[in-house]
Amino acid sequence: MDSIKYVLPEKDMPTRWYNIQADLPEPLPPYIHPVTKKPLGPDDLAPIFAMELIKQEVSQERYIDIPEEVQRIYRQFRPSPLYRARRLEQALDTPAHIYYKFEDVSPAGSHKPNSAIPQAYYNMKEGIKRLTTETGAGQWGSSLALACKYFGIELKVYMVRVSYDQKPYRRMMMETWGAKCVPSPSPDTECGRAALAADPNDVGSLGMAISEAVEEAIKRDDTHYSLGSVLNQVVLHQSIIGQECIKQMEMAGEYPDIVIACAGGGSNFGGIAMPFMHEKLTQGKKTRIIAVEPASCPSLTKGVYAYDYGDVVGMAPIAKMYTLGSHFVPPPVHAGGLRYHGMSPIISHLAKLNLIEAKAVKQLPTFEAGILFAQTEGFISAPETNHAIRGAIDEAIKCRESGEKKVILFNHSGHGHFDMTAYNSYLSGKLTDYEYPEEMVKAAQAGMPQV
Amino acid sequence: MDSIKYVLPEKDMPTRWYNIQADLPEPLPPYIHPVTKKPLGPDDLAPIFAMELIKQEVSQERYIDIPEEVQRIYRQFRPSPLYRARRLEQALDTPAHIYYKFEDVSPAGSHKPNSAIPQAYYNMKEGIKRLTTETGAGQWGSSLALACKYFGIELKVYMVRVSYDQKPYRRMMMETWGAKCVPSPSPDTECGRAALAADPNDVGSLGMAISEAVEEAIKRDDTHYSLGSVLNQVVLHQSIIGQECIKQMEMAGEYPDIVIACAGGGSNFGGIAMPFMHEKLTQGKKTRIIAVEPASCPSLTKGVYAYDYGDVVGMAPIAKMYTLGSHFVPPPVHAGGLRYHGMSPIISHLAKLNLIEAKAVKQLPTFEAGILFAQTEGFISAPETNHAIRGAIDEAIKCRESGEKKVILFNHSGHGHFDMTAYNSYLSGKLTDYEYPEEMVKAAQAGMPQV
Repeated sequence: MDSIKYVLPEKDMPTRWYNIQADLPEPLPPYIHPVTKKPLGPDDLAPIFAMELIKQEVSQERYIDIPEEVQRIYRQFRPSPLYRARRLEQALDTPAHIYYKFEDVSPAGSHKPNSAIPQAYYNMKEGIKRLTTETGAGQWGSSLALACKYFGIELKVYMVRVSYDQKPYRRMMMETWGAKCVPSPSPDTECGRAALAADPNDVGSLGMAISEAVEEAIKRDDTHYSLGSVLNQVVLHQSIIGQECIKQMEMAGEYPDIVIACAGGGSNFGGIAMPFMHEKLTQGKKTRIIAVEPASCPSLTKGVYAYDYGDVVGMAPIAKMYTLGSHFVPPPVHAGGLRYHGMSPIISHLAKLNLIEAKAVKQLPTFEAGILFAQTEGFISAPETNHAIRGAIDEAIKCRESGEKKVILFNHSGHGHFDMTAYNSYLSGKLTDYEYPEEMVKAAQAGMPQV
Repeated sequence: MDSIKYVLPEKDMPTRWYNIQADLPEPLPPYIHPVTKKPLGPDDLAPIFAMELIKQEVSQERYIDIPEEVQRIYRQFRPSPLYRARRLEQALDTPAHIYYKFEDVSPAGSHKPNSAIPQAYYNMKEGIKRLTTETGAGQWGSSLALACKYFGIELKVYMVRVSYDQKPYRRMMMETWGAKCVPSPSPDTECGRAALAADPNDVGSLGMAISEAVEEAIKRDDTHYSLGSVLNQVVLHQSIIGQECIKQMEMAGEYPDIVIACAGGGSNFGGIAMPFMHEKLTQGKKTRIIAVEPASCPSLTKGVYAYDYGDVVGMAPIAKMYTLGSHFVPPPVHAGGLRYHGMSPIISHLAKLNLIEAKAVKQLPTFEAGILFAQTEGFISAPETNHAIRGAIDEAIKCRESGEKKVILFNHSGHGHFDMTAYNSYLSGKLTDYEYPEEMVKAAQAGMPQV
């Protein structure tokens, strides 16, 4: 019987994170202080981040040990399975072999706990009793709620108001794990109050929610801030995904020609891609690495590579990245986790160096892909994940046309159990596509910092 | 590092189902024809069931081979993990060891596909192109939708109207897998039309939905009927759960003193319990086997052991079972999967022989247990599953009081991702308990068949 699932034994779970910064052909441009406009030092970050995480942010060590207590929690759902998508291959009539790494198995249902757990852990170790964070559709907020509960940390989540209203299930999940969740913009912060004064019906954005969470962390001595994507430390923590994949592809006796993931801030893409990037940079592998982003929020394919704010108000560090402008508010696609104006500095840097490819896809074809996946592989995927599935299917169709027997690996970043209304809209013909909002992007980019 | 997860290698997945009928101290009382009131023969069932499933219903063989094609699909999510609940043990400060079998990992999120897949398979093998079924909260309907999609079978699901209206996500899941789902009572059947004529606002019940699904299967030559619980064949298919547990408990180096599962129709309870019952009956094991049911629908603890109809209209076979009366409509607790008036004939028989214990619990304590479980083990559980968790916690607390170091195993039958509104009600103090509806039960039992 042909295998469809590759389960890595628990003893083979990686015990170190892989840090791409050790292998970059050129070093990353430094972060810039949002006020002084000078390169950022560890002391600038100390009011909002644990010192160990600040060190990881700039570390040049190739491997960083995963603390025993973090490993113990990882082991509840890791190593995650790798699947061969035989039924999908058959439906596509493709000679390609399609594999997917399955991150749905964490209690929060996505890859996000891979970074939430160490972030909560290091803060706990440094005596922090309280964290703030932002969340869009709620994948990150729920993962951090889970991690904070494990380590006895209080959590306040600023949730983008449009998602807070439309997707109450994720909020309920956060509350089940004991977190407090408020819609952003909120009356709890200065920047939130200013936004509400300007427009009481402001639906919010990730950039605004970040501003609120950072403001509260700066103002309260007992409180740190936590971010689920974009940062180097997040890409580091997520590297466990790709490291496991390398071992599991060995079990399958194949090596991917193409590695695919969706990309918003870059956490799940970085997680699966960086260990393969390591082999590409150091072992001469020719792997194509493709980030799939929404056509409505196309930072890698339509943004500029420049220094920009990470948030709306300009309180978060300025990073060099592909960006659509920090005031850009993406159209309300269902893939809330991909609605961010910028992109991880690491991934932006690699894109600039032409070491990764990027591709933008519209919403309707991603749901078409998600339905085909559900009807063949069974699993119902998050709208974000549907972008990766679309990317994999497109490559598999090319193989059908060319007759090439490529090996395609993609990251199945999470399930869609809290996104069924999006599937319902699609199936009832009510889901729409959005054009690329070029004019809005131009205006947003005009407001970028002069660095 | 102490293990928390026991993953059975794929090659050790059981390849045969275990049939308790081979080991019963006394044989099961036969099914009775609902019209002739005579014992039921295979020909009576042929209009609605595949012949292979009819054979399994009455088989006395101890083991029945799992078809290769069914195994292949099982292997996507099986063997499912066994967890040691170390964080829960710690929170309870109990010397007991608590283990849970984790059936959440199937694409439908529960144990239900274990029977949905073979039922769809055998119907496909016998040329059936179309199935009908009923569903309450939607766990079974969605699992059969998945299985039918795999085997190219059209599916129509009659969903209890109150759940259809209140829990739209499960309906959307069924539609994502290509099934048609209608609220029951519906205008599509004679019995549905009669119910709607009597009360246009009839909220429905499992018994009514079964009547509609059976009526349509009887009337249409191309259509069979499928049932997700109660039947002997379902307990047979679900036996893979307990068989895996026996091997996994061996990996953990322990043997359960107590095996616990929630029980509505009996599918997940039978699944985990029967292989342990086998060892109890044939190897002299002293395992306590406990079924936990809702106090609002207490068939095992308050019902009578008698011949009763399986559905409201009296079209389904009459079975000897613990029953509250086929016209009993249980209060609207969130554990929709436990809202059935009867109980599996096998489990009823074993209860009558005092080989299993039963316990009824109220709704609020089950959610209290579910919250504690979520905040320690991470996973958010189905309201049905919360009954099993409550049962396990109660036994662990007894161990704390007595100092006994018992080994407790329970079946974590499914996740609660589609039940977050129930958690929300509980957390906001709006969830209520229901008294045992004694008067309604008396009335319902008065209408039982004279056999």
